[in-house]
Amino acid sequence: MMKKSYHFVAISGSIRKGSYNTLVLKTLQKIAPKHITIEQLSIKEVPFYNFDLHEKKFPAHVEKLNDAVKKADAVIFVSPEYNYSVPGVLKNTIDILSRSPKKSFDMKAVGIMGASTGVLGTARAQYHLRQTMVFLNAYAMTQPEIMIGKVNEKFDANNQLADAETKKKLLEFLDALAKFSERFKAR
Amino acid sequence: MMKKSYHFVAISGSIRKGSYNTLVLKTLQKIAPKHITIEQLSIKEVPFYNFDLHEKKFPAHVEKLNDAVKKADAVIFVSPEYNYSVPGVLKNTIDILSRSPKKSFDMKAVGIMGASTGVLGTARAQYHLRQTMVFLNAYAMTQPEIMIGKVNEKFDANNQLADAETKKKLLEFLDALAKFSERFKAR
Amino acid sequence: MMKKSYHFVAISGSIRKGSYNTLVLKTLQKIAPKHITIEQLSIKEVPFYNFDLHEKKFPAHVEKLNDAVKKADAVIFVSPEYNYSVPGVLKNTIDILSRSPKKSFDMKAVGIMGASTGVLGTARAQYHLRQTMVFLNAYAMTQPEIMIGKVNEKFDANNQLADAETKKKLLEFLDALAKFSERFKAR
Amino acid sequence: MMKKSYHFVAISGSIRKGSYNTLVLKTLQKIAPKHITIEQLSIKEVPFYNFDLHEKKFPAHVEKLNDAVKKADAVIFVSPEYNYSVPGVLKNTIDILSRSPKKSFDMKAVGIMGASTGVLGTARAQYHLRQTMVFLNAYAMTQPEIMIGKVNEKFDANNQLADAETKKKLLEFLDALAKFSERFKAR
Repeated sequence: MMKKSYHFVAISGSIRKGSYNTLVLKTLQKIAPKHITIEQLSIKEVPFYNFDLHEKKFPAHVEKLNDAVKKADAVIFVSPEYNYSVPGVLKNTIDILSRSPKKSFDMKAVGIMGASTGVLGTARAQYHLRQTMVFLNAYAMTQPEIMIGKVNEKFDANNQLADAETKKKLLEFLDALAKFSERFKAR
Repeated sequence: MMKKSYHFVAISGSIRKGSYNTLVLKTLQKIAPKHITIEQLSIKEVPFYNFDLHEKKFPAHVEKLNDAVKKADAVIFVSPEYNYSVPGVLKNTIDILSRSPKKSFDMKAVGIMGASTGVLGTARAQYHLRQTMVFLNAYAMTQPEIMIGKVNEKFDANNQLADAETKKKLLEFLDALAKFSERFKAR
Repeated sequence: MMKKSYHFVAISGSIRKGSYNTLVLKTLQKIAPKHITIEQLSIKEVPFYNFDLHEKKFPAHVEKLNDAVKKADAVIFVSPEYNYSVPGVLKNTIDILSRSPKKSFDMKAVGIMGASTGVLGTARAQYHLRQTMVFLNAYAMTQPEIMIGKVNEKFDANNQLADAETKKKLLEFLDALAKFSERFKAR
Repeated sequence: MMKKSYHFVAISGSIRKGSYNTLVLKTLQKIAPKHITIEQLSIKEVPFYNFDLHEKKFPAHVEKLNDAVKKADAVIFVSPEYNYSVPGVLKNTIDILSRSPKKSFDMKAVGIMGASTGVLGTARAQYHLRQTMVFLNAYAMTQPEIMIGKVNEKFDANNQLADAETKKKLLEFLDALAKFSERFKAR
């Protein structure tokens, strides 16, 4: 019997090239089981939200992001923590996406994870992001939570995930998110 | 006897022209007692933080903002709330400012306020911003807190503050922040 | 055709007799549509959580609360805010309930509301309570949120809810929570 | 020349005997430099806050705690994290203390730390406790923050702190808190 297939979109909270969080996102793409596809949405070109500009003309490529979010079974945020909260660059993306009448996050299943070189693994940012999801009427999965501490010790010199425990947790996360997303299908 | 003078810098969390929060900031400038000057720092030209670019060359105008913060007696944030948290555009400004070795927020007295057309007056954003201040080793004043709800009812058609209670609270805030800033002078 | 029936349990975060939050809870019971029953769980007799005592003998009446939570379609918290967070007396109840192997909150639909005489209507406490739900693997409904400000103006001298808007919102909340609880049924 | 002396009061967020957090508190007492004394305030006998009882007669031993807080140079909280937040038993103590007209926490310097067997070391509880301090008009020191993860590996079989790094951080914390408390002296 075929497994039901799922399509997730994933957003990295960092726009630098060598980002560990983007690396985790790409690792998710690589290790995902066949029935789960993960499309990265790039936020590098998203402008600062400015009502003066955007009430007249909402940026077309931002609406494309909204379309991608809307048709996805779930959204994954893989984000660093800046200054004990969500990076401004990621928060701004959410801010501008949220101003579209498409309401792409409405009743959307969301998975949150993050990686840091410290031990807390972006915990503080994740709870702030969860609060933002409340406003968007999106549902952030509660378990498993993934906070990858000391991420620099978990990838090898070729940027391959070298920590079996982390890999196991990432796979569990994807599996749980697929199941979780079923709860938020229209009914 | 002359009153001791204070110089505050103030940042609006919105970059749109018709922002109520920028209007509150400008009102602060207008009503401040003579011994308190308030300089608005514009964040409109601040780029998205990107380590790849900024480790090579930190933007000169961002460093000017850091210099202004560093020499101020206190920093005031007047910010809207977006999606139950700090606007991305403001958070990004803090993120990039914090990456300079100047550490301009270190042991700085900070005042937080915000205005919204709803009743909560940006409460949710303010507590997130307070958490960010913890990382920066800055001290956000605890009282008075200013959350201006239904701000649209508190200014008249000429954008003049028409609510006596709010005016009184703003003046108390400035006075308290001046006294509070004394606690964080080098000693 | 008969409407499907729902059974909710509700906990007030205050143990004083004249509590506005308990009054809101009792109002919910009174105005609930016929297909929704709401049982109040009293927390007045719940002891302070103390591992030394409770690892030997978990209090029988606490387990009864857990049983009631477990079989309910959803749990409603109606709580005041103390010192910008969840009242200790309510948090302690959650703490001790959570130590039972019954894991009564696991995948439970939860509704959060609160009332205060101030304007914020317990907003700060509600987001802390949401974070606690993450640990419990419970899902707090995102919309509608109910923060009843100036609650003293919304009940008449006979403790009857006299504010039509609030009544409407309470009924919407109950209806939404019933629908929301369907998403968390075993499947 | 004699060093100025400081008197701190310290509260453990756990009332069980074998609590690691109480052990950390007692370790602080043991390793504190001579000019710093640390008095533990027991919260085991503090009743649940109940306005109905306490408006008539505020418990005498709770007022003694308030007196001790009031005359201390700083307050230290050493607390576990329960359900991603402050333990109910500790929060309740703060709730009842705060209802006295003594306002013992007003402009008080506060130090927050915690220990857990997990890696996060009570981070989530600490930020909630910081928010509560805002209401009390108390100032929680920002740096150093102490989150002792894997605390079970840091004490030996005789309950002696066996981790040099942790000991160093605890001493830095005490020293920083003494200096920090100077900022909040009446002036």
